Amino acid sequence: MLRVGYYQFRPAFGQKKKNLLRVINTLHAVTADLIVLPELPFTGYYFQDRQETMLLSEEPSGSTIVEALTALCKERNCYVVTGFAERALDKCFNSALLIGPEGLLHTYRKLHLFSEEKNWFDPGDNALQVQTVRGAKIGMMVCFDWIFPEVMRTLALQGAQVICHPSNLVMNYCQDAMRTRCIENMVYAVTANRFGSDKRPHGELKFTGQSQITAPKGVVIHKALPQRETLFITEIDPDTALNKKITALNDLHKDRRPDFYTL
Amino acid sequence: MLRVGYYQFRPAFGQKKKNLLRVINTLHAVTADLIVLPELPFTGYYFQDRQETMLLSEEPSGSTIVEALTALCKERNCYVVTGFAERALDKCFNSALLIGPEGLLHTYRKLHLFSEEKNWFDPGDNALQVQTVRGAKIGMMVCFDWIFPEVMRTLALQGAQVICHPSNLVMNYCQDAMRTRCIENMVYAVTANRFGSDKRPHGELKFTGQSQITAPKGVVIHKALPQRETLFITEIDPDTALNKKITALNDLHKDRRPDFYTL
Repeated sequence: MLRVGYYQFRPAFGQKKKNLLRVINTLHAVTADLIVLPELPFTGYYFQDRQETMLLSEEPSGSTIVEALTALCKERNCYVVTGFAERALDKCFNSALLIGPEGLLHTYRKLHLFSEEKNWFDPGDNALQVQTVRGAKIGMMVCFDWIFPEVMRTLALQGAQVICHPSNLVMNYCQDAMRTRCIENMVYAVTANRFGSDKRPHGELKFTGQSQITAPKGVVIHKALPQRETLFITEIDPDTALNKKITALNDLHKDRRPDFYTL
Repeated sequence: MLRVGYYQFRPAFGQKKKNLLRVINTLHAVTADLIVLPELPFTGYYFQDRQETMLLSEEPSGSTIVEALTALCKERNCYVVTGFAERALDKCFNSALLIGPEGLLHTYRKLHLFSEEKNWFDPGDNALQVQTVRGAKIGMMVCFDWIFPEVMRTLALQGAQVICHPSNLVMNYCQDAMRTRCIENMVYAVTANRFGSDKRPHGELKFTGQSQITAPKGVVIHKALPQRETLFITEIDPDTALNKKITALNDLHKDRRPDFYTL
């Protein structure tokens, strides 16, 4: 069994220290194996331009955020998947980090940038790869990646049992779609969304909350309210996601006919 | 613009002539460009064994059903996509046929057999291919194919604007999932389901109705009641499905990152 959860909150744009403190204070007393945080929970989302993104992003190596989360994981003996504005020399990625008591374990760089993110970030350049947390295989994707079925499919075919999905959703399609993603792949998913808005000189962007934990066969285990701070933790059995049978005679992996797919 | 629709009804098992007459009588006065019928609407669904399936299936060439539907298409100047138990020498496929005034135009053989169908039919062996009807590109899939995102993806990448989806659904996942399929591919879909049940000596199987027409972005244009005969026709603009933009900066085809998908 795995105790998984998420923290839905309202980051303050650009206030990395304040946002980090809020996360650390909230997770301080938590007992869990794996907590998922939203996309870009420390910098905020609605950047003005690439220059601002470069300025607010940081390299994971030596990052105060990564160090603080590693200390938290050590103290609470847990793992965190978090969004992270990742600088890498002259590049800048909308990433998700897997952090554990051992430190930074994996970096996923968002493959499918949404809307104006294309002006702020570089598109992801590393492979979709599952990681093992307490014997369970987890896959990472960020927000808009959900709309491309290939992302969760690729992770599920690698054996992912739990999809960790940091998000800053502004549209209303995703939560329902995650039910279908979890049916077609027979996996769990933890969609950690933020709420509130980023009010900036160039405009305001509102986020839709409703973070969701979805089980194989599309059962919604829990869905947060749209505009409410929520820390939610529950126990799941990741082994359920090893069984791909939707009927006694249908295994959703083995029944695939890749020779007939032209993708 | 294209007038599309479906006929949801309750086939009587094994009574091919009666079922054909019902279809012809119902569609006799219809004005439409394209009508979708359920999966296996003439033979019924719940076969006892392969022998019975072989007995009730037929080759499209010389088939009374195909001839009658061709005559209907000529008379009404329309096209029909219908389920069809297709015999081919010693093989037997759960197929969908595209029939027009010109006769049989395309045969699709279900790639993903559901549950006991594996005992009755051979798995499909021909390519997923779009067809052109009145200038619109249509794709065909049968029932359980919906659960494999690769099917509609393959058709959409070939340019399909309208997915014709003859079905005999017994589970309740599909209708909601079709919203996600239509968002991720930005296409229309016509899911024509049957209702009622097949009561046979070896058991009874119930079907769930709720045929559905879904638009790009997942809007449900129409959904039938679970257990009611329904002929529904509406006008759609297939050109809407040529636009794959979900935001000004996101084209769902062009934004794909196939180099990172391992499918």
